[in-house]
Amino acid sequence: MSATATAERVFNFSAGPAALPLPVLQEVQDELLCYPGAGASVMELSHRGKVFIDIMEQAEASIRSLLNISDDYAVLMLQGGAALQFSMIPANLLRDSGKSAQYLLTGAWGKKAIGEAKKEGTVDIAYSAAESNFDRVPTAGDYQTDDNAAYLYYCSNETIQGVQFQSEPQTGADVPLISDASSDFLSRPLDINKYGLLYACAQKNAGPAGVTVVIIRRDLLERGSESLPGYLNYKNHASNGSMWNTPPTFPIYVLGKVAKWLQNDIGGLETMEAQNRAKSALLYGTIDKHPEFYLGHAQTDCRSMMNVTFNLPNEELLGQFVAEASKQNLQNLKGHRSVGGIRASIYNAMPHEGAQALASFMDDFANKNG
Amino acid sequence: MSATATAERVFNFSAGPAALPLPVLQEVQDELLCYPGAGASVMELSHRGKVFIDIMEQAEASIRSLLNISDDYAVLMLQGGAALQFSMIPANLLRDSGKSAQYLLTGAWGKKAIGEAKKEGTVDIAYSAAESNFDRVPTAGDYQTDDNAAYLYYCSNETIQGVQFQSEPQTGADVPLISDASSDFLSRPLDINKYGLLYACAQKNAGPAGVTVVIIRRDLLERGSESLPGYLNYKNHASNGSMWNTPPTFPIYVLGKVAKWLQNDIGGLETMEAQNRAKSALLYGTIDKHPEFYLGHAQTDCRSMMNVTFNLPNEELLGQFVAEASKQNLQNLKGHRSVGGIRASIYNAMPHEGAQALASFMDDFANKNG
Repeated sequence: MSATATAERVFNFSAGPAALPLPVLQEVQDELLCYPGAGASVMELSHRGKVFIDIMEQAEASIRSLLNISDDYAVLMLQGGAALQFSMIPANLLRDSGKSAQYLLTGAWGKKAIGEAKKEGTVDIAYSAAESNFDRVPTAGDYQTDDNAAYLYYCSNETIQGVQFQSEPQTGADVPLISDASSDFLSRPLDINKYGLLYACAQKNAGPAGVTVVIIRRDLLERGSESLPGYLNYKNHASNGSMWNTPPTFPIYVLGKVAKWLQNDIGGLETMEAQNRAKSALLYGTIDKHPEFYLGHAQTDCRSMMNVTFNLPNEELLGQFVAEASKQNLQNLKGHRSVGGIRASIYNAMPHEGAQALASFMDDFANKNG
Repeated sequence: MSATATAERVFNFSAGPAALPLPVLQEVQDELLCYPGAGASVMELSHRGKVFIDIMEQAEASIRSLLNISDDYAVLMLQGGAALQFSMIPANLLRDSGKSAQYLLTGAWGKKAIGEAKKEGTVDIAYSAAESNFDRVPTAGDYQTDDNAAYLYYCSNETIQGVQFQSEPQTGADVPLISDASSDFLSRPLDINKYGLLYACAQKNAGPAGVTVVIIRRDLLERGSESLPGYLNYKNHASNGSMWNTPPTFPIYVLGKVAKWLQNDIGGLETMEAQNRAKSALLYGTIDKHPEFYLGHAQTDCRSMMNVTFNLPNEELLGQFVAEASKQNLQNLKGHRSVGGIRASIYNAMPHEGAQALASFMDDFANKNG
């Protein structure tokens, strides 16, 4: 690895695909032509060979260890992203169940999930934050739970709006809780035993695009019908160790390295959360210091630790902010095209110095232009 | 790139994921920490940013140029592998069509495709090579075409059995021809205008696992119902330039580099085919030189240019063959667990010297043990 190559790297606030840990990228680079002992690149290895099976088992073991996942759950590594999960979940757990599914609607991703679920069965939108332009998540009492629901579904962190659940929402008695954790997976500890199914596409905190981790309680595997398209049936993947078909080998390899980095370099999810909290506190602190200038989108108690969203007084200042930040190597800060403003995504791999550099730029920019 | 790393590389006869061109891997390695001008790894780039959009457009342009694909066809880059295509094709083109679909069954992959198609509608297995243990493909007259079929489906190269169509099979009048070209895509020229849909997972000739290229005639995009799971509807992907959801960015980036290598380093698909023919001729020539010792699986006129399958007189010699080959850096020669024997996969990226080394090892081994 050349020093130059590292020196050229910017602080990348992309919402995903997003920054990856530099030590992981360096290992990937070192091994790119020859995975140790294999005489070939990881990309060239048969998924049925011992070397790759070890890589995949290691990746799963690291995820299990980080989240303390028992054998009551299968850990799958699939293709198709969150978008395919939007369909797979209701296709397996709602279709022909005679029940309805509860959805908590707190942003853009929940909305897409609901659109797909409606094709498979009855959807009960138990809570919606649409009226307040998705600036919050519900608290206990904001919606009615249904003891007869097929499941209750929520998106733990909405990347576009920058709102995040601080803890799991309530469900009806014995109703499986299902979480789209795509954008906060592995950013903090969680008690997997509260969930029926939790999934995350990797490209925020956990790895590159192209692999989606699905953690599913094994009893739920029995609910999918044999008539489903084979790829959509969780049971096929679970009974074949995610090798029902050729898995996305390289993305899984990088995912495994990121999980190992969380275990060994960071020291686990408690420490990761503390680091993530510190980074987001820097940015939210700066917003709160200039409340007339930086207009935070999320209600204070629903703020995302991952995606800090805010606007500026006018479009001109917004453009100026992005342009000047870019000159200081603070990149990809433009908000999603559907909401505008600024979005600073500060996932696991964003170093503290990146958040610090942005906070100090924001402070200067507000002082100069506010 | 260190010289050591290259020196350690073996001749990798894996059936897929398979060998990739060394110059491609070297470029990927060089750019791994910083894609030129991006200040970040390709894996860290937003799929919505200009840099990655350029990468994706370039990959598509190279594929279009190599196969001379007109704008009558969409070129999609999807997740889920061939396994998801087994379902997507009948879900879009057979379900509720009131028609049946014709399938030519020439090996293991065709069989899986038929299993999924039967969930979606009526399947007419117009031809099956099961009786002769899948050692051949049909010629004109071996089956009846149906002018009213929803489509006719075949697998152009069966990797496990090592049989390959030398040209397109006949269809009924105006019946779309559909090909699983996973294992011979970009290995030879073809006239895309003969096809309604042709698809290939990348991990044989075209790139790493995790991306599947689907080339579909645009009029067929209209056949999928709005009620399909969104990811399964080709139209969603076509109307969004394969960015209906986050695409598998890194596999697409490598696919693009392989396509560029075919254009610039190899000089196009005619040359690639000539090289592939020469490699397979070396191996089949050696089999034919020792007809009592090497028992080729495929009928001579159906031999695959990609996967050379044969057996040895007994299990002991088979084990010895694999072990001795391995000592000479000829790796991953064991046949698929379902058929046994030897399988030498010699896709685009297998250098001529690799095929030569194997042929000469085979000759020596037969002379010593035959």
